[in-house]
Order: sequence, then structure tokens, then C-alpha cells
Amino acid sequence: MSDLDRVLAAVDADLDASLERLFALLRIPSISTDSAYAAECRRAGQWLADDLAGLGFEAKLNDTPGHPIVTGRSDTGAARRVMFYGHYDVQPVDPLDLWNSPPFEPRIATSAEGVKQIVARGSADDKGQVMTFVEACRAFVKVTGKLPVDVTVMVEGEEESGSANIAPFIAAHTDALKADLALVCDTGMWDPETPAIILSLRGLMHDEIVVRCADRDLHSGYYGGAAANPLHVLSKIIAEVHGPDGRIAIPGFYDGVIEPPDYMKASWADLDLTPENFLGPIGLSGPIGEKDRSLVEMISSRPTFEVNGMWGGYIGEGSKTVIPAIATAKISCRLVANQDPVQVRDAVRAFVRSRLPADCSVEFLGGEGSAAVAVAHDNPDLARAAQALAAEWGKPPVTIGEGGSIPVVGQFKKLLGQDTLLVGFSLDDDRIHSPNEKYDLASFHKGIRSWVRILAALAG
Amino acid sequence: MSDLDRVLAAVDADLDASLERLFALLRIPSISTDSAYAAECRRAGQWLADDLAGLGFEAKLNDTPGHPIVTGRSDTGAARRVMFYGHYDVQPVDPLDLWNSPPFEPRIATSAEGVKQIVARGSADDKGQVMTFVEACRAFVKVTGKLPVDVTVMVEGEEESGSANIAPFIAAHTDALKADLALVCDTGMWDPETPAIILSLRGLMHDEIVVRCADRDLHSGYYGGAAANPLHVLSKIIAEVHGPDGRIAIPGFYDGVIEPPDYMKASWADLDLTPENFLGPIGLSGPIGEKDRSLVEMISSRPTFEVNGMWGGYIGEGSKTVIPAIATAKISCRLVANQDPVQVRDAVRAFVRSRLPADCSVEFLGGEGSAAVAVAHDNPDLARAAQALAAEWGKPPVTIGEGGSIPVVGQFKKLLGQDTLLVGFSLDDDRIHSPNEKYDLASFHKGIRSWVRILAALAG
Repeated sequence: MSDLDRVLAAVDADLDASLERLFALLRIPSISTDSAYAAECRRAGQWLADDLAGLGFEAKLNDTPGHPIVTGRSDTGAARRVMFYGHYDVQPVDPLDLWNSPPFEPRIATSAEGVKQIVARGSADDKGQVMTFVEACRAFVKVTGKLPVDVTVMVEGEEESGSANIAPFIAAHTDALKADLALVCDTGMWDPETPAIILSLRGLMHDEIVVRCADRDLHSGYYGGAAANPLHVLSKIIAEVHGPDGRIAIPGFYDGVIEPPDYMKASWADLDLTPENFLGPIGLSGPIGEKDRSLVEMISSRPTFEVNGMWGGYIGEGSKTVIPAIATAKISCRLVANQDPVQVRDAVRAFVRSRLPADCSVEFLGGEGSAAVAVAHDNPDLARAAQALAAEWGKPPVTIGEGGSIPVVGQFKKLLGQDTLLVGFSLDDDRIHSPNEKYDLASFHKGIRSWVRILAALAG
Repeated sequence: MSDLDRVLAAVDADLDASLERLFALLRIPSISTDSAYAAECRRAGQWLADDLAGLGFEAKLNDTPGHPIVTGRSDTGAARRVMFYGHYDVQPVDPLDLWNSPPFEPRIATSAEGVKQIVARGSADDKGQVMTFVEACRAFVKVTGKLPVDVTVMVEGEEESGSANIAPFIAAHTDALKADLALVCDTGMWDPETPAIILSLRGLMHDEIVVRCADRDLHSGYYGGAAANPLHVLSKIIAEVHGPDGRIAIPGFYDGVIEPPDYMKASWADLDLTPENFLGPIGLSGPIGEKDRSLVEMISSRPTFEVNGMWGGYIGEGSKTVIPAIATAKISCRLVANQDPVQVRDAVRAFVRSRLPADCSVEFLGGEGSAAVAVAHDNPDLARAAQALAAEWGKPPVTIGEGGSIPVVGQFKKLLGQDTLLVGFSLDDDRIHSPNEKYDLASFHKGIRSWVRILAALAG
């Protein structure tokens, strides 16, 4: 029996204990965007640092102006070093009443199709995925006494709230963090049978638009018909963002956007991605994007504008005949290669200002965001990882662009000069960011086994 | 000294005590639209019933399926009987942080211009106005031992939440409530020096529009660009309600709308109502209504469509890259003569449905509403009241249509066969339904004196 087979067997034998450890981490409500949970975020970070220390890592919790960053470093003199990145923070859980069980009381549920699932906030995004890597390391240490490559671990607590402190931290610790390759486990499978390696990530620009009309809330009986209503004004602006062709009508929005490279377009041809199988499971039928683009292009390689939240006026029980003074929208844009997030932010703001009635005003409360990144597709480690995944899953991974954003990947390239291998095991139906988030037990188990194989392959 | 002069002198002498009584009523947070305040609503009603009983009225609190209705009846054998209607409930107080002092701790403030003001929720709408009438009755009883006309008082507790129970109550008590004339004190002055009698009231139709797209909240990184966003869908529908000419583009919306009568148009010519003096004080400059209509027409004699509240997605601290599953808008329409509220509701709903993407759905949660009413302008009591107001204020009242809605006035005509005299003393800057609602001390004092004169005049 090879070392690799013995490590894989140890993963299988240790699965129940691995689950117990994951559940302990999932029980900590580390919601980073809400300051009420700051102590819980620290507790989650400390839990991870303690776990890494138990595996022989030199581990610690690094304070930042926000939530702390966990680092761990193994030094066994291996020929190569990889840096693993993940995040221990999770999304808010509202609307809480749509959860079938408390979000921070993890449990194993069995779906109607008989699939065993880990249900909890953070099960897929990203605690469950982080632990696939940690458990892979644990199995190597247990069976062979050491890791096949040296490993630096960096797990942050602000990925779901803008990652404001990770870039300064990397910049301040470039020597300690430098490695041959970065590994990230925060993405998905192509489908439950097919692994995926992500070759590009969209960027992200957040903003909050606050429109003010009258200087107070008004009685709609006295002023209705004459006074501007900021909910009407904001609705009209949002309605005009997308043209009838599905394109975003903001002047300058598409500046810098490049067409996807040929090797990526070629890979799309093999994908069975249809509106039915992509949108059907969430209760939709037709894609609403640009009419001349394919579905896979819309969700991976084209920029977007979304209203993530909007509110104004009376939103309580019953009715109130008010013309509100203020209307607010939280918006975000997914960005693709060569779009400048600052320029996009300025274009959005100019668009809003240009449509504002003369006696209304607007304030913008958002931040700057991150640019899209592409991973070099000819990096030889990609081929090694692809072979490892093929061995575990019985079929080669799909290599695609991914619609989500992991801003830190751009920092790895810029500050550390290293490419990133993006491999993850979540599924489209994992309800990430939604009530009843889950992670298939198979994603967790075979995810650990996948990292065992990848780490062995990267050792060369 | 005449009886009238002695009663007016008693009003002046008793002003401080009158204020104390009003403050006691204002301290009761009788918010009818929020069921958490049901006991406070009852307490306000009971306070009024007790006060009326102290004036010799046969007074009681009448239970309804909602908040109770106060009735009081004087029987002194006078030649004529009037029925006074008002409401003891108040609007919600949010946003609470915009109040300069607690909304249910009434106080006298002095404005920058030196005007003394009663500041509290309900000071103008409608507790302060109700008490102008009650204090006028008190002064008569105190000085002359009786009222110049017999009086029936009916004060409800659900005017700010749809008045669901007042029409059934009237229908069940037509004999007890029938009078020669109804009096309502829930409207405004033309300006601080000029009284007003209201000849028409707009109707009101409420609805709540709930748009659903995907069957769960979605991650904007996975689905952004392809999945429908209900905030975009709802914004687009709302944006299309008003055409570029300011007209409401809902087919059938204007069905039945009649042009204002000539005597009303003639009265507008004398009014100095400009965008500067109407909208300037609330921080706006230009009216947003139909481009071919005058400002006074927009706010008194044309129907409206307003979004009173709207929400969807993540509205907490920080950001969340979610495509929400649901977006909601509370809307209301002010209606004018001959519009049918049920037909308008159906037209609004058909408009929304016609603009909904095929894979999205809509639900409507609102009620039916009330039609507009007009008061007979040749009723001889109008002339009597006008003379009484002219004597108090030194100038004749303006007779106009009013943009607000008091649905019960239509019931008085329909169920009791009586016209309504609408006289009130609130001002445009009273911040009705808004934070820091106030009622000028002069409105209260001269309001009491006005009712003394009107009651004397109506006795004939």
C-alpha cells in the first residue's frame, strides 16, 4: 500500500471525527458584517489557530483593525511550499424564519433523493471547504508524520464584509507568506460528479445610493401629486440601468471589458448548461442578461449590476400614507477582466446623478471594490491538480471562469507574485448566502480526499 | 356682554387648563396601525369618553372588532343637532431618531420666528383638533349651562389604519347618530391667517405588491447576470406608472375622473399658491405632477399614485451580495370624484401583472379603499360657518378641495343623509405623519374660539 493510499484510507476511517470538528466550527456564529458578532468571529479564528497548532503548525491569531487573521506555517524542509487561503467568517442569516433549523446548529439531513447533507450557515461557504484542506493535512501528519509540501495557511475573517484588512496584512508579511502556489477552496464543482478548476474570477464593486427629496416625510394627502417621491426617483434610475437588450446602459460601464479567450470559449462548447438545468432548480425559466450572450457567458464572463437591497418609507405593519424623504439601495457590480472598479463606481455615480431631479440629492456610502483576476492557464501545477482531481472523481475537471469574486486572489499575484489554484467542492444547490445553506457530505469527504491527492501531486 | 362674548372670554381664561387636558391625551401612544399599541388606543378612547361624561354627555366606549369608538350625546332639547366626528388614534412615529423630543411627551416649543407650538405625535392630527371642539363645548356648558345646539360626538380609533369598523358602526346606529349636519375637524387652514372650509376630499386606495422571482435568495456571484431580480422588476414597474408628461400611465386609471366645477376653479384664481411657497418650505422646488395642470389642481382635484414604502433584499449593516427572492411595495392612490376605488385597484393590479416576467409572480395584500366625496356647496350652514370664521379670523375662509381623504365623510352622506362641514386649523408646516409633528398654540386657541362661534351660528 502506497503512502497515498494509506493517507486516503485514514481520511475514510476518520470521517466521523472530521465531521465533529467541522460541527464545532460551524456552531460559532462568525457573521463578519455585523459588529455584534465580533467576539464570535475571534472565537472562530482562535478555534482554527488551535486546531492548526495541534497539527504541528506554528499558528497564531493576527490582530487587524477588523477581525483577526489566522496564520499557520509548517516547516519540514519540503522542496515546495504552497499557501492555502480561506475564510472563517460567514454571511448574515436573515431572513431567519426561512431556515428549517437554527443556522448555527449543524446537522446531517437527508434530501428527498437520499443525499446526506451538512446543513448550517458556513457549511459550504467557507468553513466546510476550509476544513477539507485542514483534514487532508491532518491525515498526512497522522499517517506519514509530515506534509508532502510545506504549507502556509492564511484564513481571514472578513471575506463576507469586504476583506478590508487582508491586502495590508499580505503587504506587511510578504516574506512569511510567499510560496510557489496559492490554493483556494471557496468555489464549486461543475456538477455533483464533475470537479472544476476556476481560471478566472469576476471582480466586485459595492455602493450604497441614498436619494433624498423633501427634507421630511410628507403626508400624501397634502403633498401627493406635487412632491417628488424618492422611491419613484430611485426606482426610475434602477429601471434605466438595464436596456431592453439586457445591456447595462451606464455610459462607460463596459470600458475595458475583453472577450473571453478562445480556450475558455472552447471549453463552454462541452458544457450542458441550459436555462432549464441552471435556472429551473431555483424556480426561474429564462435568463435576463444580454440577449446576444450565452448563459455561461452571462454568469462567468460578463459584468453585472444588481440591487442587493432597497428600502424607503413605511415598511411596518399596516399602511401609512407617507411620501418618504429618503430611499436607499445597496448595489453591487460583478466586474470582468480589465474593468477598473474605481472607474465603474464613478460611472455608476455619474449615471445616478444625471437622472436626479434638480431638487433631489444623492449620497453614496459604498467602497471601491476589487478587479477581476485570471489565472495563468499554462501553469504546470494546473495539469498536476487536474490529474489528481481526475483520479479522485473518475473524470477530468472542467476548467472555467467563475462568476463570483475572491478579491484576495488578485493580491496574491500582485503582492506575492504567485498564481492561485482555485479548487472547490460546493454545488449550485448549496444555498450559499441563503437560508438552509448546506454542503453535501460527499463534497466534504471527497473534498478531503481530493486535497490529499493534490498535495501529493504538487510535491512532484 | 353677550353670551357669545362671555363664552369666548371663558375660553381665553381657561386656556392653560385646556392645554393640560390636551397634553394628558397626547401622552397616550394610541398608534392604531400597530397591534402592540391596542391597549393604548383603548386608553385614549376611555380618556375621551370620561372627559365627555364630565361635560354632561351620555358617553361610552363602543367595542368593535378593532379599536373602540367613543360616542357622546347631549340632549338639551335644542332646535338643531350636529354630529362631530374626529379620531383619537395617531400615526406611527418612526423614524424615531428624527424626533427632537420624545413623540409622546408633549411640550410647548417656540419656533425661530417666535411662534409657540404644541409638539407631539397627534398634536395636529387629530387629538389637538378634536379638543378644539370639546373645549368649545366645555366653555358653553360652563358659562351658559348648556350647548346652543344638541351635539352627538363620535371619535374613532382607526382613522390612521383604514377605518375598517366605522362604516358598520354607523350603519348599525343610524338613528342614534342622525343629525342636521356633521362637523369634522381634521383639515387645515389655508395659511396661518386664513381659515378654510373644505368642499371636497380625495378618496384613497391602498395596496401592497409582493413580487417573487427565484424561490430563494441567490448568491449574486453564481446567478448574477442570468437570474431575475425582483427589486429590478418592481422598480421597472413603478418607473412605468408615471409617463414623461406626469400622467399616470395605468390603463383605465382616470376612468370617471371629472373636471372640477367652475365655482371651485374660480376660487383657485384668488389663491397665491406657487411652487415656491408650497414646496419651498419642505426643500423642493418644482411640482412633479401632470404638466398641463396647475399646482392646486394636482394636490386637490387630481388622482395620484404613490409608493409609501418599499423593501427587499439585505437592508442591514454592511453589504451582502444577494439577489433577493422577494420585493415589496406599499402603494396608495388618492382618488377624485367618480373614480371607483375597486376599479382603480383592479387597473393597478392588471398593470403590474402585464409587466411581470413570465417566471416571476405577484401577490396583492391590500384592501379596497374609499371613493372621493364632495360637500354640497349651497348648503346654508356653509354660509353660517363662513361668517363665524370670518368674525374670528378677520377674513373670510377660502373654500377649496382638499387632497387628503376622510373616508367616513362619504358614509355620513350615504348612511345618514347628512352633509359635512369640514373645518380645521392645522397648517402645512405641522409635519403631520412626520417626525416633530406640531400644532400651533394659536391654532388650538383660536380653533376653540372658532367652534364657539360656529356652534352659536348653527343654532340660528
